[in-house]
Amino acid sequence: MRTYITVIGGSRVEDPKVLEAAEKVGQLIAEKGAILVCGGRGGVMEAAARGAKKAGGLTVGILPGQTRAEANPYIDVAIPTGLSWARNAVNVLAGDAVIVIGGAAGTLSEIGLALAYQKPVIALKGTGGAADMLAEKEINGHLVHGVSTPQEAVEKALKLAAI
Amino acid sequence: MRTYITVIGGSRVEDPKVLEAAEKVGQLIAEKGAILVCGGRGGVMEAAARGAKKAGGLTVGILPGQTRAEANPYIDVAIPTGLSWARNAVNVLAGDAVIVIGGAAGTLSEIGLALAYQKPVIALKGTGGAADMLAEKEINGHLVHGVSTPQEAVEKALKLAAI
Amino acid sequence: MRTYITVIGGSRVEDPKVLEAAEKVGQLIAEKGAILVCGGRGGVMEAAARGAKKAGGLTVGILPGQTRAEANPYIDVAIPTGLSWARNAVNVLAGDAVIVIGGAAGTLSEIGLALAYQKPVIALKGTGGAADMLAEKEINGHLVHGVSTPQEAVEKALKLAAI
Amino acid sequence: MRTYITVIGGSRVEDPKVLEAAEKVGQLIAEKGAILVCGGRGGVMEAAARGAKKAGGLTVGILPGQTRAEANPYIDVAIPTGLSWARNAVNVLAGDAVIVIGGAAGTLSEIGLALAYQKPVIALKGTGGAADMLAEKEINGHLVHGVSTPQEAVEKALKLAAI
Repeated sequence: MRTYITVIGGSRVEDPKVLEAAEKVGQLIAEKGAILVCGGRGGVMEAAARGAKKAGGLTVGILPGQTRAEANPYIDVAIPTGLSWARNAVNVLAGDAVIVIGGAAGTLSEIGLALAYQKPVIALKGTGGAADMLAEKEINGHLVHGVSTPQEAVEKALKLAAI
Repeated sequence: MRTYITVIGGSRVEDPKVLEAAEKVGQLIAEKGAILVCGGRGGVMEAAARGAKKAGGLTVGILPGQTRAEANPYIDVAIPTGLSWARNAVNVLAGDAVIVIGGAAGTLSEIGLALAYQKPVIALKGTGGAADMLAEKEINGHLVHGVSTPQEAVEKALKLAAI
Repeated sequence: MRTYITVIGGSRVEDPKVLEAAEKVGQLIAEKGAILVCGGRGGVMEAAARGAKKAGGLTVGILPGQTRAEANPYIDVAIPTGLSWARNAVNVLAGDAVIVIGGAAGTLSEIGLALAYQKPVIALKGTGGAADMLAEKEINGHLVHGVSTPQEAVEKALKLAAI
Repeated sequence: MRTYITVIGGSRVEDPKVLEAAEKVGQLIAEKGAILVCGGRGGVMEAAARGAKKAGGLTVGILPGQTRAEANPYIDVAIPTGLSWARNAVNVLAGDAVIVIGGAAGTLSEIGLALAYQKPVIALKGTGGAADMLAEKEINGHLVHGVSTPQEAVEKALKLAAI
């Protein structure tokens, strides 16, 4: 059975270094044969999906609204949930591990939901937002793993997903 | 953008004619290049996904529980939602049209949810359960279209999905 | 522990006989000391909540949107879910039994969801829509009980809720 | 229209000081005439609900599972959602403001969801967990307000809820 990695992060990101990191993460996920899951929208989600598609991967977008029109153009399977922010719970449950890149309130909620669902969570340090806020923090025995590069993020995610 | 067709029906079906019809529906969906969405479990869902895979299609399963382990073996993209029966709303929202084959209480709810979301609903007559109970019934201006063969079901679904 | 009865039915109902029946059902639920749960909006939901408030009862509205502003004025506890039509699953799960009065696609979905959750479902005959369409129908061993008066509906609901 | 205040925090808390603070918060919410919303379970949720009931308030529990049996004994209106951790989104959306007391992964997710839904979030400092981790932190322009006493928490929540 294939591994699913969920990538979470902000939808309105302009820092080219953060978007580049997200794209690299997506590319590596695809190169390793894993399915990329994300929230399906812009910013980090779009960059990660673009990276995965460049490497010939399969991308899934779990959307908050009622229509596929809100998906970014790099999503192969777009699932409109109609659940608004409750879709974040589905987004992280669909992954065997979760990689955090930057991110604001929605991303923060996804870190919490992922930990609540006992998913490994890996934060890419230096990308700001929720990733830097939570990296290497421990919450009730759950550690948010901190990593320094897209390569480390994907390696760690695949390793922890396999346990 | 690709068309998504959701197939709904009972998870515990033993009538070989119903399962054969579901498999044929899945096969035709794939042959037409559409993505098959279903609840990801047994019975009609498994038969439809098997048919789609035989024709080289892409299959998506929107699961009620928290683990991919409950997916049938013909699902390419398995999304555990953790939403229990509320996942039925996601299942039908993900399709551009919905085909009903047999089905019990869960299927009945999906017909209602699909109509509430303004989706075209096509019931395959002669498959029993919710399909026969609702075929050609009108609810508040929404018609459950009745068809007689898998071919008609998929043609009608694709035609109405395109509107 | 108090009993919860969910009343389902259309939000845009103009037939005074249907609204009168809904109001009577709400009143009787309150008189029996049960909590009235509904979708919180207009039509049958508003009439049932008004009836319950006239009798000094407690009313709960499980709303599809993100704001309490969409609740009718007779709702004591208004819960905006942000889940869109998936809120129907919460609405019926919150009741120990479900009473159906008229209703369109959304109501049809709630009957299916209630049966899927093993809840007793009682349809008030003569109120049209989903109630008349499903009254006395059996779906996979689950019967939609048909009754002829608001009194019978509430008595049956309370009796079956207690089992 | 009444104000709703959601109190979030861990379900397995043993520190008597944290539970005492939660009880005081619940009591003050009720004394101010607001409705207490919480996740309906043990720990901080139970203490807050107990406090509210002591002061004659109304308490609402938004439960993750499918049965009211998991509610603590101080919940007046128990809503089983069947949504698992996605219920956290409903829990915070139901409040006009959110007060955080301690808390682990689930609470962390609720802080993120509350901020995503543009709700005021007030963290009671000194109660550990998610409250201390996020107090006075700013996420994408949203501030998690830090307060030092139950009195301040409820005053701030009511003031910000009224804006």
